[in-house]
Amino acid sequence: MTILDTGTIAAGSLLTVASLTVAEVAAILAATDRLERMAAAERAKILEGRRIALLFYESSTRTRTSFELAAKSLGAMTTLVSDKSSSIEKGESLKDTGLTLRALGAECIVLRHANSGAPYLLAKMTGLPVLNAGDGMHEHPSQALLDLRTMLTRLPGMGGRLVNAKTLEGVTVVITGDILHSRVARSNAMLLPRLGARVVLCGPKELLPEDASGLGAGVEIERDFDKALKQAGSRGKAVVMMLRIQRERLAGLELDLGEYISRYQLDEERLRSRAPEALVMHPGPMIRGLEIGGEVADGPNSAIEDQVRHGLGVRTALLVRALGAGGFESVTV
Amino acid sequence: MTILDTGTIAAGSLLTVASLTVAEVAAILAATDRLERMAAAERAKILEGRRIALLFYESSTRTRTSFELAAKSLGAMTTLVSDKSSSIEKGESLKDTGLTLRALGAECIVLRHANSGAPYLLAKMTGLPVLNAGDGMHEHPSQALLDLRTMLTRLPGMGGRLVNAKTLEGVTVVITGDILHSRVARSNAMLLPRLGARVVLCGPKELLPEDASGLGAGVEIERDFDKALKQAGSRGKAVVMMLRIQRERLAGLELDLGEYISRYQLDEERLRSRAPEALVMHPGPMIRGLEIGGEVADGPNSAIEDQVRHGLGVRTALLVRALGAGGFESVTV
Amino acid sequence: MTILDTGTIAAGSLLTVASLTVAEVAAILAATDRLERMAAAERAKILEGRRIALLFYESSTRTRTSFELAAKSLGAMTTLVSDKSSSIEKGESLKDTGLTLRALGAECIVLRHANSGAPYLLAKMTGLPVLNAGDGMHEHPSQALLDLRTMLTRLPGMGGRLVNAKTLEGVTVVITGDILHSRVARSNAMLLPRLGARVVLCGPKELLPEDASGLGAGVEIERDFDKALKQAGSRGKAVVMMLRIQRERLAGLELDLGEYISRYQLDEERLRSRAPEALVMHPGPMIRGLEIGGEVADGPNSAIEDQVRHGLGVRTALLVRALGAGGFESVTV
Repeated sequence: MTILDTGTIAAGSLLTVASLTVAEVAAILAATDRLERMAAAERAKILEGRRIALLFYESSTRTRTSFELAAKSLGAMTTLVSDKSSSIEKGESLKDTGLTLRALGAECIVLRHANSGAPYLLAKMTGLPVLNAGDGMHEHPSQALLDLRTMLTRLPGMGGRLVNAKTLEGVTVVITGDILHSRVARSNAMLLPRLGARVVLCGPKELLPEDASGLGAGVEIERDFDKALKQAGSRGKAVVMMLRIQRERLAGLELDLGEYISRYQLDEERLRSRAPEALVMHPGPMIRGLEIGGEVADGPNSAIEDQVRHGLGVRTALLVRALGAGGFESVTV
Repeated sequence: MTILDTGTIAAGSLLTVASLTVAEVAAILAATDRLERMAAAERAKILEGRRIALLFYESSTRTRTSFELAAKSLGAMTTLVSDKSSSIEKGESLKDTGLTLRALGAECIVLRHANSGAPYLLAKMTGLPVLNAGDGMHEHPSQALLDLRTMLTRLPGMGGRLVNAKTLEGVTVVITGDILHSRVARSNAMLLPRLGARVVLCGPKELLPEDASGLGAGVEIERDFDKALKQAGSRGKAVVMMLRIQRERLAGLELDLGEYISRYQLDEERLRSRAPEALVMHPGPMIRGLEIGGEVADGPNSAIEDQVRHGLGVRTALLVRALGAGGFESVTV
Repeated sequence: MTILDTGTIAAGSLLTVASLTVAEVAAILAATDRLERMAAAERAKILEGRRIALLFYESSTRTRTSFELAAKSLGAMTTLVSDKSSSIEKGESLKDTGLTLRALGAECIVLRHANSGAPYLLAKMTGLPVLNAGDGMHEHPSQALLDLRTMLTRLPGMGGRLVNAKTLEGVTVVITGDILHSRVARSNAMLLPRLGARVVLCGPKELLPEDASGLGAGVEIERDFDKALKQAGSRGKAVVMMLRIQRERLAGLELDLGEYISRYQLDEERLRSRAPEALVMHPGPMIRGLEIGGEVADGPNSAIEDQVRHGLGVRTALLVRALGAGGFESVTV
């Protein structure tokens, strides 16, 4: 299809963290700050009467809801198209659904899709700004941005700002669990090292292939969770990011649930003894008692609710950026 | 989980009718009146820009739609999270879904859940005002309030107002059908006797256990529907509230459908001969030809559409109360 | 049910194209023009605060989304009730769902339903204006109106306006595919000949019964697609409207997929050699590579996206008409 070759990606798209310069990341975070400080009535004028389509081929609570509330708080109209009750189930192609939304006046499409690369194709085919809200096992860029903002506001001495490409120097981020299937891990492992962080991936071979360290310069693998935690805790600022384990996935592996829990669950005892100062994060949905203990999720180290809150903020800024609305300036870092 | 022990229920919550004083019920009804008389443009400013989450783990038309339209008519933003297309189906706990919605800025959660007591837990865990939109076989408090308002506006000589705890004296309410599984029956049987009404529960043993009279002081059981109707009709003001029968439930019982219909269906002949002045109510969804005849549902005694209309009004007041918005004053009765 | 006999259809309803006079069609198109030219902020006042219910018993992307965005762009509140998460699945009748929506303040119901005639019943039973958004294999009137507007704007020399009942004289519309099951075909075959067009239905016997020509005066049948295209292309202005083929439907027939494609697919070669100037239309969702080639769908003859765009416009006008809002004047043709 010639359109695939000739189409250009609209400027405000966010398909992968790889394409963001450090300056662009800083600009998104600065816009998030400004938008949050703004009075609600003023914010509600920024995208007044504009149309944003939420196209979700997979289930979602926090991502869909935060994009939806972000759009509404900016005064935009939203429409949700999900696979449950649309022509998607009649076999319509992503391309035609996208062209339909464009013809209906959508100025931006937020897309979650099971296939890696689907947002790229949609952006090429429609010419509209597309925000990747998770594509298969590939990327979840707005998640990496909200995780970054969470670290900048919760880690000591950071003041919530991205100053330059060394801002995260001295920070170790241990990402633990089902790395293989996680788009969150992938986007974080690509973004954080570029800002100075050391990223340590942790999990059994079945969920974390040996070549995962190839994700970026500052990415390492450590299969022993206790060791990874201890090193992170002793070296400076530590973050431990837990990923959801899908029971079904473990079923096919040699590992059983009890063994996984004993080796990889972040519980109170493990956290206190290995990395008592570490910031605890989880992209959700979490299964308490499996990858994380309830007392850790609710404890003082937890930044899990901050992540959700920053998700709303960051996505508000991404929508303003996507629609090229006023007030989104570039930042020099 | 310590949070369960320490959490306090936010003031504007409505979890059960048991916790409402007569003065609070009167205040909700008075606020409903005021809000209905208000010009639409004025009403649309009351909750302008505020965020209300609708969290529905079970299907619903009238309850969900009326809360949604009530919120929108007050100017609030709504977001719907249902079990069909959210992280709920990935096994996320009610607690974490609640904390997520709070972190996204929700100021009130309207919850329908299959488990009795779920709204109580959610209110404890989030600290947000929670409105119980039906929890398992337990309660449906906004339904009892709308049913009350329907009686006050449709029964002769009441003038739509709750004057004091004796306002419903002389009124007999016959609730008929699947009492055992009905949260509507339970909330009404708890509320109405406290306002002076006599409540008669009616149905076969399988759907109405003997101990159901323990629900409240003025609650009686009468298994013979004809007798219950006749007594109610001859004693003063009568209301007959029919409940939906789920075919699947009858299947397991000794009773067959034909027998149930002949003994308990409210048809034109039965109504006219036993209680020709009675007000006919049904919380919906109803199955015409099963628990109720179509000509009764559409007839002059029917208040079924009034119930829906008052549902919108009462829920508007409950949202204003939940968010502590101006204009919701207490009432002395 | 007596209500069925006595109910009257509200004035702004659109149940079938058969009931529209040519003057009414012209008035709808003229209102569409006016509404499109209007500033967004002005348009957003037309139905400010009014309530529109979208009642969808079948899946839909473009019809549901365009009615929803049309309503929102006029300032109206919308609520969506679909079969996936409502009392519909508990067996509630269409009538009671309709009465519930009316009691909740809905001033117009947009209905998609699997049963032919359902919108007619709903209009009778509720007294509300009902817009038929597709009923079984019967009609899809707003689709016929948007198809008409697409022809008037894309065919040479028409200037987008319906001047009189001869405006489409000299235009041949070849409708090809599963005519038997298509409400789109039916509504177009009823409307277009009344405006002067010649309509040629095309498809194998199994999908196009012999008596389909009885749909209207100017309706013919031609089973040979190449011949139909060639004649249309040589006689004046040509339109070729392709319909979606459901694989499951072919399965039961003698025809196989390969044979269907070779005889009826509109591909580049066929279009260029038989009717190189023809306007290509498709109501969607389309299956590229089955009834239509991708290069034709994306090519210069294609008006498929225009159809979606005009759908939004026409449905905006239909909502204004339904609610009797100002600015909808009659037109004399």
